Amino acid sequence: MQDVKALIYDVFGTVVDWRRGIAREAEAFLGPKGYKLDWEAFADTWRGRYQPSMEPIRSGERPFVRLDILHRENLLEVLEEYKITGLSEADIDSLNTAWHRLPPWPDSVPGLIRLKSKYIIGTQSNGNIALMVNMAKHGGLPWDVILGAEVVQAYKPVPEAYTRACEALMLPPEQVMMVAAHNNDLLAAKAQGLRTAFIARPLEFGTKNRKADIEPADAVDLSAWSFTELADKLGC
Amino acid sequence: MQDVKALIYDVFGTVVDWRRGIAREAEAFLGPKGYKLDWEAFADTWRGRYQPSMEPIRSGERPFVRLDILHRENLLEVLEEYKITGLSEADIDSLNTAWHRLPPWPDSVPGLIRLKSKYIIGTQSNGNIALMVNMAKHGGLPWDVILGAEVVQAYKPVPEAYTRACEALMLPPEQVMMVAAHNNDLLAAKAQGLRTAFIARPLEFGTKNRKADIEPADAVDLSAWSFTELADKLGC
Repeated sequence: MQDVKALIYDVFGTVVDWRRGIAREAEAFLGPKGYKLDWEAFADTWRGRYQPSMEPIRSGERPFVRLDILHRENLLEVLEEYKITGLSEADIDSLNTAWHRLPPWPDSVPGLIRLKSKYIIGTQSNGNIALMVNMAKHGGLPWDVILGAEVVQAYKPVPEAYTRACEALMLPPEQVMMVAAHNNDLLAAKAQGLRTAFIARPLEFGTKNRKADIEPADAVDLSAWSFTELADKLGC
Repeated sequence: MQDVKALIYDVFGTVVDWRRGIAREAEAFLGPKGYKLDWEAFADTWRGRYQPSMEPIRSGERPFVRLDILHRENLLEVLEEYKITGLSEADIDSLNTAWHRLPPWPDSVPGLIRLKSKYIIGTQSNGNIALMVNMAKHGGLPWDVILGAEVVQAYKPVPEAYTRACEALMLPPEQVMMVAAHNNDLLAAKAQGLRTAFIARPLEFGTKNRKADIEPADAVDLSAWSFTELADKLGC
């Protein structure tokens, strides 16, 4: 761990609480228009289309487009499923930027501030540049660098997503640590030679199901229950 | 100016003092090896190869490579010109990272901290991602986002360098302001619809010549003598 120079982060679920964030934004936007929904279920439905929508790009069937475009395509399907009609294009654009305003978990900002004192800290999210920048301004996330899908032109967990992030930092993979709440992301990073840290986010999917990874996979190098505990473990 | 959401910055000369930075680094590295040079002239010679080295990429003759690679090619030529021999590959790599450690002008950090409170602040330099990140860590530059040549795959002042930076931020060009000490950079940005701010850096090229632009071109929107004065003018 001594050689690690940069920590790169998964963001949705690991740094921010997408589920309650999207639920709150959807309610604030659609509530005044007369809709009464289970807003967290609405968030789950929208998020449920996230992984499948990247598949054609991962497989090379579709050229790379940024996540905001996929989020908007997915939103149109969700609105149809929920029979929500009459929104203008500008309304839909506005609701789509809900992802730009997701709230950090309580330990994210204090932990990142400490980790930043010793390491380069960057995003390695599937979110696009503007989404990450706006989210950081909104929530006070002190990133040194926005990497991620739009910069590396690849969606995790394809190998290039990790290797190109290391190349952009001009660091060998063993000097870069991937931080995530999701074992599949960490194992894909590990396979490219990166170091890995697991952060438990047991409430990412709410209290009614147990989908979240709550323990690290065996191959993961380090694990913590919060970013502040990660800062403790890394001596920051 | 009211609609401006992001300030994007030229870096070499505008934010950092490349000439004295390179002179100091070269002296610290080559001095102990027995070389006695006019170190600022050495810096000028190395920097003199900067613009010509990007030309084949701007014209499409050569595929894009990051600036560290061009800096290293240029350094090899400069070392030959100065008859500096016997450096290992690792020595040359190390000297080449002098550009990653350039000192900010005294007003840069305090000005940027104030400007960051109201605007997205990002680099739009020809420097590559790692160069900009390492320089920011070294000098305390509080960027929200590293854009620039490696992200947009184009070297200023080609039009795509500016338009793709705006696209990455998902902002129309009139909501983005280019900040630079060089009128040619500002006029190229202006031609793509960006707002422009000139910062006077009369000592960029030292005290012995008058090459620096000390006044803004007529078309430039705003001008200041420092980043702190720019913060005053923008109400930060």
